[in-house]
Order: sequence, then structure tokens, then C-alpha cells
Amino acid sequence: MIERIRWLAKKNGRGTLIHGIGDDCAILHVPRSRQLLATTDLSIEDVHFRRKWHSARSVGHRCLARGLSDIAAMGGEPLACFLSLGVPPRLRQKWVDEFLRGLLALAHRFKIPLAGGDTSSAQKITADILVLGTVPRGKALLRSGARPDDRIYVTGKLGGSAAVLKRLYAGEKPDAAKARSHFYPEPRIELARRLRELKLATAMIDLSDGLSVDLAHICQESRVSAVIEAKAIPIASGAMLDLALHGGEDYELLFTASAKAEVPAEIAGVRVTHIGNTLPRSSRASLIQIRDAMGHTKPVEQAGWQHFAKNITSR
Amino acid sequence: MIERIRWLAKKNGRGTLIHGIGDDCAILHVPRSRQLLATTDLSIEDVHFRRKWHSARSVGHRCLARGLSDIAAMGGEPLACFLSLGVPPRLRQKWVDEFLRGLLALAHRFKIPLAGGDTSSAQKITADILVLGTVPRGKALLRSGARPDDRIYVTGKLGGSAAVLKRLYAGEKPDAAKARSHFYPEPRIELARRLRELKLATAMIDLSDGLSVDLAHICQESRVSAVIEAKAIPIASGAMLDLALHGGEDYELLFTASAKAEVPAEIAGVRVTHIGNTLPRSSRASLIQIRDAMGHTKPVEQAGWQHFAKNITSR
Repeated sequence: MIERIRWLAKKNGRGTLIHGIGDDCAILHVPRSRQLLATTDLSIEDVHFRRKWHSARSVGHRCLARGLSDIAAMGGEPLACFLSLGVPPRLRQKWVDEFLRGLLALAHRFKIPLAGGDTSSAQKITADILVLGTVPRGKALLRSGARPDDRIYVTGKLGGSAAVLKRLYAGEKPDAAKARSHFYPEPRIELARRLRELKLATAMIDLSDGLSVDLAHICQESRVSAVIEAKAIPIASGAMLDLALHGGEDYELLFTASAKAEVPAEIAGVRVTHIGNTLPRSSRASLIQIRDAMGHTKPVEQAGWQHFAKNITSR
Repeated sequence: MIERIRWLAKKNGRGTLIHGIGDDCAILHVPRSRQLLATTDLSIEDVHFRRKWHSARSVGHRCLARGLSDIAAMGGEPLACFLSLGVPPRLRQKWVDEFLRGLLALAHRFKIPLAGGDTSSAQKITADILVLGTVPRGKALLRSGARPDDRIYVTGKLGGSAAVLKRLYAGEKPDAAKARSHFYPEPRIELARRLRELKLATAMIDLSDGLSVDLAHICQESRVSAVIEAKAIPIASGAMLDLALHGGEDYELLFTASAKAEVPAEIAGVRVTHIGNTLPRSSRASLIQIRDAMGHTKPVEQAGWQHFAKNITSR
């Protein structure tokens, strides 16, 4: 299997990879003006995907997209990826090939090599993706930089991926080409890079667990609270407010910026929407509140994606 | 679980880690005179370990030791580790805590932080370890540097880990304190560093799959063949030639050096043994031959560790 991966992976690569698959470690060059970013993400059959719902190509794409989205969330640029892959002994070669093609097509678009990894047998298909990236020294966008009275922004539209998942649960067979937000999500690398260069964002995270959970991460790490406006949230077609708030896997970016900052309405071709504001942290009020069209606020619970993920296993 | 890992991992760390667990990525500093090394290794329940044979602490140690040994095999020094951990929903917290203690005790000895990772539910315990390391620019020891008529060396003694595994299969309960080569193998980081500084080795690999398989990797990547002397192979107590040749998980180092090089008999307190020589690659002869006490040579097949690993699953 390693030889096959080596062969399929051969097409990608660039100057930063000194030595790839075929030794005990990969050797990489990190430019001296930059810091290294590293993130790992598990994709496990019947937890993160189902074979009857997701094509192998989509599973491969989603696997790498999760890691690339984490690099984007820091304002970074990807350098290389590594794959640890466990497969059931009876899984067809075609599944693995298609999985790798989905993963490598995305890697190719972002010009990163598959530089190494590990393989094993496993009861359920298990893919752990490691993505390395770089960011100019000291310029990474953290979750902890938001200040009270910053504005809160999201990119793109929310709830689209969860809306497709809901249809899958209902037994429908959505067309993958028309439901790309779920089957082929787009990591916001270019948008994040421009945002970093504009020096507008004070904190950033990617929306993998859902707005309610991921905004809470920013609030906790930055020691602020937040109020969001229900009517301002950009809801994806086919979704509703509930899915936009709590559905995960949108892989859009959530960031904060000073109220004085001039944040463009569109960056790298993607819409950027002001959805609320941060406030000083108060021990009495809840971490996140939502204001409806009537001006009434109520607390937002952190339901989030874990809820859906559990369902994939238990049903 | 992430908060718990974050708390347990807090004790480790040093200057190279700018930002650890608690953001989308870890941020690391790679010194400008060095290149980055990266390796990932899967440890899956009933493939790489069994819960009734291996304590959680041993599983945690072995998980990280595999990655550290890959860093050693390049002559590198470790920088940080990352853990992706999938656990069955009903697994006791105590198992995870002990697993982390085993892993972190080893990390602490090598002064590296657990800098991030991912968690998920999984049917079988699944741990993917990523170890990052560094090596002075251009000084990594590759598998591909051996030349014909180099000498072949191994560190320590071979077959010890497989001998313990054989006893486990036979239903025995070996004392982990007396069978450390299997339950608590020692990555040869310091020995490898000194070897790199001595500039003696032409190629190197760690013995994870077994001498027959790992020597074949060096032969293939370096385009040489090899003859080893049966009576020269350092066999661990309790093992036999067969296990020393084909048993895996010894995590000793196998390296080649010019016949003119003065290789010390001991490096960093570990014995170093000359076990054979490389030859020009011939299409007729097999990749590796072994010479017995009578001077007769015969081919060595690459049986190796895969054989044992398969047994763990199927029995």
C-alpha cells in the first residue's frame, strides 16, 4: 500500500520538501522568516463519515480540508501533509485509490506534497491527517486576541453542510455536485492570507464545530462575551437559523476586528458578514447571546456539532 | 477529554513551542540552521497491542517510542509530539490517564511538549502519534547513502521484543519490568546524535520491522546487497537467531559505515556490533545473504514483523 501511495503522491511537491515518502522521516525546509504550524484531524468511518453516504473521493477531500481549514484559521499557508491510514483487510483497492485521489486533488490545488505517513489494518477506515503550514513570525491569528467591543464576522454562508447531513439522515441522496459545502468544502486559505495581510482581524477560528461552539472558544480564550444578531447571520440555501448556529463542518472562518477597522464586504471572492459584537466578560450573563428581530436577546447554548457526530455513530 | 489532556500535558514544554494545545494549530519555532523532520505512526488496539497483554502505560510509551525512534533513525533530535486519539465510548477514564502518563513520561525525558492533536470516539483504541524533530541542515542520515563494501552495524541486541511477544502468545505473563525491550523500548536518540556528529554513518534506519526487512530497505534505497554473519548478530537473552533476524520492534539502529571508519564498540553506553558488509548490487544474487559458522551462505527472506503483526489480529 505504501508503494501505491508513493506512486500516486509523486505528482505533488515543491521546494520545501527535501525528502518525502521512503525514509524514516520526511525532511522539510521552513523559511527562516516564518514559524511552523501543525494540526492533526481524525476521520473515522461511522463517526465522521459513512461509506453509503460519502464517496471515497469526498472522504479523501474532507479529510484534508479539515486540516487545511485549521491552517487557514491561523492565517497560515500550508507546507505539506501526512496521512496515517488504517483500512479493513477486505476493503477494495479502488476505495483507497479514490480516497487518495480526492485527497491529492485538493493537495495539488494548494501545491502541497503528501510527504509521508503510516499504514495499518483497522476494523473501521481510520484516516488521521497531519497538515504542516507556515506563517510569518509572530503574525499567526489566535483565538485569544479579541477585545471587548470588537465586531464579529463570518465568511460565506452557514448551515449548508448540516442541511445536507439532515437530508442524508432522512434517507435522501443529495447530488454531491450540488451539495459541495458538505461533500467538497473549500478551505479558506487565500481569504485568511489576505485577512492576515490586511492586519484587521484580532482573533480567528474556523467553523468546524458550529458557530455556537466555535464562537464560545474565541470568547473563552479572549475572555470576552458576545451578542450576535439573528437577522445578520448569513444562512445557506436549504438551511435554517438553527443549523447555521449549531451545524458544523462549514469550514468558513469566524473572526473579530476592531469597530474602527474597515473590513471589506468581500475578500478573495467570498462574502464577509458582520454578525455581532463582543462585550466585556460578565460573570452574570451567558457567554453568547442572540438578539432577534424584535430586539429581544436570549442565551445561545453550545449544542454544536458533537451532537450530530454522536448521531452518526448511534443510528 | 481535550481539557484533561491539556492539563496532563501542561508540565512539558520548552522554548521551541510558541503556542500549544488550545488553538486551531500549534505554533513552533524551527532554528534557522536546522531542517524539520516529521513522522507519523499508528498504534491500533488488536493490531499493534492488546489490552490484556499491554498496560495502558506501556501502550502510551510504545506509541511515542515508535515516533522518537524514527527521529533517531535520521540522526535528529525531537522537537514536539502530537496525538490523535480515538477511544471507545465506554473506555474507562483511568485507561486514558495511564496511557497519557506513559506517553508523557517518555516525552518529559526527551524534553518535548505534547503540542496538540485530535480526539474522537472509535470502536478500537486508535492512537496516531506525530513526532516533529530537527537536524542540522543537510546532515540527516538517509537510507540511501550506503555504498558497496561498507560495513553494517547494529546497536544493542536483537530479537528481545519478539521473544517477549512469543511468550505472550504462549499465554505467559512476562514481568514488564524485566521485559522492558518489549514493553518500554528505548529510542536511541542520544546514540544517533553522537553518530551523526562523528560523521561515520553512510546510511541508517531504525529496526522496527525486523533486521531482514529493514536491511532490505537500506539495500533497496542504496542499490547495494548485503552479507551478514550469523555468529556476529547480537542476540537478546531469551531470543534466537530467527527472532533476531525477523522479529520487529527492537527500535535499535541499523547503520552502514565505510570500512575505513573507526566505529567505536560502544556509543552513548550502547554496544555497537559489526554484523556484515554491503556488496555491489547483483541481479543474480538475493538482496541479503547470511553466512553460517561453516562459511556457507544462504539467502535471507524478508519475513519480518508484518508476519507477527498479522497474527495479533487473527488469533
